[in-house]
Amino acid sequence: MKKLIAITSLILMSMTVNATQTVAIAIHGGAGTIERGNLTETQEHAVRAALSESVEAGHRILAAGGSSMDAVVAAVKVLEDAPQFNAGRGAVLTHEGKVELDASIMDGASLAAGAVASVTGIRHPIEAARAVMTDSPHVMLVSQGADAFAKSVGLEFKEPEWFITDFRARQLESVQASSHASVQLSEDWFSTVGAVALDASGNLAAATSTGGMTNKRWGRVGDSPIIGAGTYADNASCAVSATGHGEFFIRHVVAYDICARMRYAGMSLNQSADTVINDVLVDAGGDGGVIAIDAHGNISMPFNTQGMYRASIDGAGDKTVAIYGDD
Amino acid sequence: MKKLIAITSLILMSMTVNATQTVAIAIHGGAGTIERGNLTETQEHAVRAALSESVEAGHRILAAGGSSMDAVVAAVKVLEDAPQFNAGRGAVLTHEGKVELDASIMDGASLAAGAVASVTGIRHPIEAARAVMTDSPHVMLVSQGADAFAKSVGLEFKEPEWFITDFRARQLESVQASSHASVQLSEDWFSTVGAVALDASGNLAAATSTGGMTNKRWGRVGDSPIIGAGTYADNASCAVSATGHGEFFIRHVVAYDICARMRYAGMSLNQSADTVINDVLVDAGGDGGVIAIDAHGNISMPFNTQGMYRASIDGAGDKTVAIYGDD
Repeated sequence: MKKLIAITSLILMSMTVNATQTVAIAIHGGAGTIERGNLTETQEHAVRAALSESVEAGHRILAAGGSSMDAVVAAVKVLEDAPQFNAGRGAVLTHEGKVELDASIMDGASLAAGAVASVTGIRHPIEAARAVMTDSPHVMLVSQGADAFAKSVGLEFKEPEWFITDFRARQLESVQASSHASVQLSEDWFSTVGAVALDASGNLAAATSTGGMTNKRWGRVGDSPIIGAGTYADNASCAVSATGHGEFFIRHVVAYDICARMRYAGMSLNQSADTVINDVLVDAGGDGGVIAIDAHGNISMPFNTQGMYRASIDGAGDKTVAIYGDD
Repeated sequence: MKKLIAITSLILMSMTVNATQTVAIAIHGGAGTIERGNLTETQEHAVRAALSESVEAGHRILAAGGSSMDAVVAAVKVLEDAPQFNAGRGAVLTHEGKVELDASIMDGASLAAGAVASVTGIRHPIEAARAVMTDSPHVMLVSQGADAFAKSVGLEFKEPEWFITDFRARQLESVQASSHASVQLSEDWFSTVGAVALDASGNLAAATSTGGMTNKRWGRVGDSPIIGAGTYADNASCAVSATGHGEFFIRHVVAYDICARMRYAGMSLNQSADTVINDVLVDAGGDGGVIAIDAHGNISMPFNTQGMYRASIDGAGDKTVAIYGDD
């Protein structure tokens, strides 16, 4: 009986602790050149609805005491399935008219991480990244090998055609018809998706998923599956998911640099994220943005482009869904 | 005539400036469990000769006023060709008995970078990494796409068999016969190769090339082709090439972290490299080492394993070639 009381009070105590802990989440659906009027009212409504559904899917898990890892996976899966975003179904097409998907995930408590690059057919690449982390001794798997691994752990596959939307097919045609087609630098919209979260146990997590660049060739891999560039999470500093011109984000190790400036230079989350996006990357000519969250539940979502699809639910439970710079 | 004198004095001045500038280079051929007696005298002689040839190939370029980028490529190519090292010819074999090679390079002056992962058939993967940097708008290309790109820029290819040595074939058989074969964590030798250099113009460069892990599966990619993890160079801090258990080097963004601690925490090169290798990685259980050089020509080569194949020629022209911890 004594034992039962002890256990019961332990459970109650831990519930109380959890109840007073901050949980928070932020998500993005890409950054780039976006002006009011580019989207029809119907399109904008669909985009905002998907962003809202994604951030709520993640937050529900956090509010129920679930882990930040589960929350970021749930949030990203919603955006991978939504055809409006460049990840999973609706991803951009390669030079050969296929989808080749990249994703990565990181656990801020253990620094465990997983990533896949150039995979084809996996419905939810973010689940493949997580499986690499939990079910293999590796961090990064690429191409057919990564597909084979995902099959071996029983992940859901879809036919190549399932991923391709009419919009992306027309987009590829238009890019290939333009004079910039071979340079592949004309893209002004980087609609990677991602999520960062803080759970009731104080653990941070980050996840990113993308189809990369329209008309990409030669097995090009951007920053999204690169731990340190597109994704990083460390309870000692922050969790970051990036979206932008991936080459610049790799060269500047953007996600980890935001963490490093907090740890070593004593910057706040906001200072650090803002410096990297609006000073370092602007000076280098690298377009994009990040979502970032620290262990206190502070959220920062800077971008140096006209807009970034984004949403958040902060520690007070306040939700924002935004697209434009002045949104 | 006045113009000629002006030009001549300009040339003489610049030669004087160059002559007083420090040039320095360090190279590695991997770190791991290595005790005196593991190598026969003949083997050890061959290894030391290759290390010496590599560091001198790079240094000759620097001494003649060449760039650090040219120097690290030249040094790495020597080790890619040497069958003793796990890069290029003589690389370890995958689960399927093939070689899949990774390489990356970074220019500390511009932060330009290039990388290839899981390529097959390119004689010098470091040249493919450099071509990605100079001849494509991208930083990282993987698998068949990267092979196709390398072909398109005219790089030298060899038949698959050319890369495979008897030693590696026996090594794969032995690993696959052991009980640890499926876990792939039994490897205690990480013989990636790499080089870092400072040239007379004050520019740093870093390069890394590897065959990855023996018996690797599923398109596993380690830290070597990951900018930030296995390779980083920034004139504002240092140039780093890493060798070790790649998964740990990715999670801890080792190469960039050494640069970040110098820039943001005011550490010296030695302090920073030593902290990351002997504190951070030892605590995490990650075996390996790095070679690092700063803009003053200071060289640091810490490792937390029994040995690391390494060599350097410092600013005074003094050469070291070493294998063991007390070497």
